[in-house]
Amino acid sequence: MTASAPPPIRILGIDPGLRSTGFGVIDKAGNKLAYIASGCIKADATGTLPERIKTILEGLEEIIATYEPKQAAVEIVFVNVNPQSTLLLGQARGAAIAALVTANLPVAEYSALQVKQAVVGHGKAAKEQVQAMVARLLALPGHPSPDAADALACAIAHAHGGQGMGALATAGRRVKGGRLV
Amino acid sequence: MTASAPPPIRILGIDPGLRSTGFGVIDKAGNKLAYIASGCIKADATGTLPERIKTILEGLEEIIATYEPKQAAVEIVFVNVNPQSTLLLGQARGAAIAALVTANLPVAEYSALQVKQAVVGHGKAAKEQVQAMVARLLALPGHPSPDAADALACAIAHAHGGQGMGALATAGRRVKGGRLV
Repeated sequence: MTASAPPPIRILGIDPGLRSTGFGVIDKAGNKLAYIASGCIKADATGTLPERIKTILEGLEEIIATYEPKQAAVEIVFVNVNPQSTLLLGQARGAAIAALVTANLPVAEYSALQVKQAVVGHGKAAKEQVQAMVARLLALPGHPSPDAADALACAIAHAHGGQGMGALATAGRRVKGGRLV
Repeated sequence: MTASAPPPIRILGIDPGLRSTGFGVIDKAGNKLAYIASGCIKADATGTLPERIKTILEGLEEIIATYEPKQAAVEIVFVNVNPQSTLLLGQARGAAIAALVTANLPVAEYSALQVKQAVVGHGKAAKEQVQAMVARLLALPGHPSPDAADALACAIAHAHGGQGMGALATAGRRVKGGRLV
């Protein structure tokens, strides 16, 4: 990195879910991306909804306090065929955005189509392709879990301003744990 | 109220919605209920989802700081015929519960059926009946708005432990504004 390189912008990507909320933290410096952390927040499936929302809030608070992102990107979830699942997923997503807003992070939203276009180059990519491209773009030594990969992909889409990949270069190998269980 | 009366418990009832989140605050002292405040938080329909969630969070924070409830009760929302509406409603509800959980309030949940049974005595009551019974139970000088009435009804259902009305007496006429616009 040269002296004239812009300071990195740290981005927190979120893939919301009521059972598992994926998160991914990356740094964007110019057109270079660096992996910082990823993982997922697991909510006890036997808990009440307020308990599960508390788990999501506390998990995201901890991640924000640890990695101090400056911007957030949240995947726009699909409506499920099952209305009850759609409602549950909506509640998890609302809680996740509440945690980001409470931390005063600007929150951008990207559809799965936009995320796949930004990361794989077309909107019909399979989950495995997203995982593989995220690993390649961030120079990871292995594939992240699907939830973490989707969150990292959302952060990457935001880093590209929702645009296609272009001539993106990747940099950095700071692989950390960052996994909440 | 005699010297042996238990101290009142203040309950915040919430009827979640993305456009309008109804709230109602009541005191329960023994088997007596007293109205404290009610109203609704209106979110700008032209705003982004994170902006609307911020409005809900800030509104509830202000209500909690002003009235200092000790318990919260949230209506379980119906799944809508429109999946996109269901998702939006879920997100609003998740954000509302996030605000309550962040304020360390214990959060109970009641279905519309339970709320109607507790307030009107049967689960198929019309909205106007709920409004009228809430006004009567809390000795209000007029009918609260539908959103506020549902939130107050949810608080009343919680005050009754989700049980039927029984020989409930009402007390108190402390009618305040408490309306957020």
